[in-house]
Amino acid sequence: MSDIKRVIDIILQELAAAGAVAPARCACHGFAFDCCPQQVGGVLAAGATRLGLHASGGGAGEVAGLIDHTLLKADATASEVEKLCREAAEFHFATVCVNPTWVAFCARLLRGSGVGVCSVVGFPLGATTPDTKQYETRRVIFDGAAEVDMVINVGALKSGDLRLVERDIEAVTGVCRDASVVSKVIIEAALLSEEEKVAAATLTKAAGADFVKTSTGFGPGGATISDVMLMRRVVGDTVGVKAAGGVRDLEQMKAMVAAGASRVGASAGVRIVKESRGESVAEARPSAY
Amino acid sequence: MSDIKRVIDIILQELAAAGAVAPARCACHGFAFDCCPQQVGGVLAAGATRLGLHASGGGAGEVAGLIDHTLLKADATASEVEKLCREAAEFHFATVCVNPTWVAFCARLLRGSGVGVCSVVGFPLGATTPDTKQYETRRVIFDGAAEVDMVINVGALKSGDLRLVERDIEAVTGVCRDASVVSKVIIEAALLSEEEKVAAATLTKAAGADFVKTSTGFGPGGATISDVMLMRRVVGDTVGVKAAGGVRDLEQMKAMVAAGASRVGASAGVRIVKESRGESVAEARPSAY
Repeated sequence: MSDIKRVIDIILQELAAAGAVAPARCACHGFAFDCCPQQVGGVLAAGATRLGLHASGGGAGEVAGLIDHTLLKADATASEVEKLCREAAEFHFATVCVNPTWVAFCARLLRGSGVGVCSVVGFPLGATTPDTKQYETRRVIFDGAAEVDMVINVGALKSGDLRLVERDIEAVTGVCRDASVVSKVIIEAALLSEEEKVAAATLTKAAGADFVKTSTGFGPGGATISDVMLMRRVVGDTVGVKAAGGVRDLEQMKAMVAAGASRVGASAGVRIVKESRGESVAEARPSAY
Repeated sequence: MSDIKRVIDIILQELAAAGAVAPARCACHGFAFDCCPQQVGGVLAAGATRLGLHASGGGAGEVAGLIDHTLLKADATASEVEKLCREAAEFHFATVCVNPTWVAFCARLLRGSGVGVCSVVGFPLGATTPDTKQYETRRVIFDGAAEVDMVINVGALKSGDLRLVERDIEAVTGVCRDASVVSKVIIEAALLSEEEKVAAATLTKAAGADFVKTSTGFGPGGATISDVMLMRRVVGDTVGVKAAGGVRDLEQMKAMVAAGASRVGASAGVRIVKESRGESVAEARPSAY
């Protein structure tokens, strides 16, 4: 088994070096998480097969490695969160994405599984102060989060206070950078005009975030193809794009990846991976996100 | 002018001492905010006219003094928040209820108006950690909040972890008590079973909170008559009950007060006060909360 893994690793490294394909996880993933978005972005920009999803439907491992397996509803219970972690370990999702109150619990459950814990900050309204978001970020990192998805101050953006929007993003991304934790910036695109989307994505890139993310899943709309394309255009190849909200099956996920998404947030991850394997999806958990 | 105020104060004190009527604001309101819920509750329990709303439809001042004039949507702009404060000062609402990012702005605008600033903590999912909620509470108090509405950890309650629910509430109410700031505990009743509602209201009372509050306005349902009655039954006369979410006109507000509510959160405050004055409500702001 370890021989097979070694051979696969060598093949993936060779292919990655040739710029032909991105491994589902880069070689140093366990060491420094923030290397991944750039690599994935670089491969996408090179016109590669976008992680194999295009041509062949993608290997299940590749599909799962792009998904943040997500459960963010207020009334999620310990047993639901435990189930989420069990599924994540079984299907090898990139992370489980949970509210801050569950981070320590998930980190304990997922230790050694290769699945990270992602949490959310200033979620879902984004209307707390920068120092509160920073405190919340430190707390989830202390509890074991490897990735942090923060919501921008939408009201400040709409009021033209770009300085506050930038300071607010940096309050979170700075702490994440110090701790080698992946940062994602949720712009809640459904609430924004085209100009505001561009401004938000630009400030995200300027603040050194690892990803720009479309939506919280609690706003008036989820990820759209056009928003993902716009965000990819604005941030270029060095920043990841996460599509979240309403991605409920493999077809939608493929469309998001084709549009430029390098990560997808979904509660329908199990269904999506099963679809990619050609399995029945009847028993997959219905999506609430 | 100061003579008139003195006479009014004496009359209100006499009436309050006789238990005949509750002043819209108690005499010591400017000194210690947390005296109010008990007084209002006491008057209600004594079978009084529930602040005049029953018999006569209530004076506009009495109606307004029961309302937290609320704007909590993520994309609220500075000019919308400014309008909210202008309306609150004009109509003498109890508070403006805004997200943390707007507290300092509102406190500046409302200085000397007699209208307090209320903010929200762990809002609207309630799924952050107790220390994060405590930090957020300290921050909004620092910025000038006189009242704090926090959301309980719904997931912990549903998982049977009452100890965490209690610790979480106390993390906020303790800080509020130290600062003489009114605390309200949002149980998000629409997500709870009857037993869970009773447990949440009981823990709220045990934690020494000033109010128990029905809803965030972002959950699957708002305030209902039966929830307000249940909460009033559980917390008794020494804790306030705030009905929030979906209270859109005077009739609904009267029903909530009749059921035991001593405060109402609404974005339709202007409409409600105008209705109580018998004025046209055509130009009142439509409710989004």
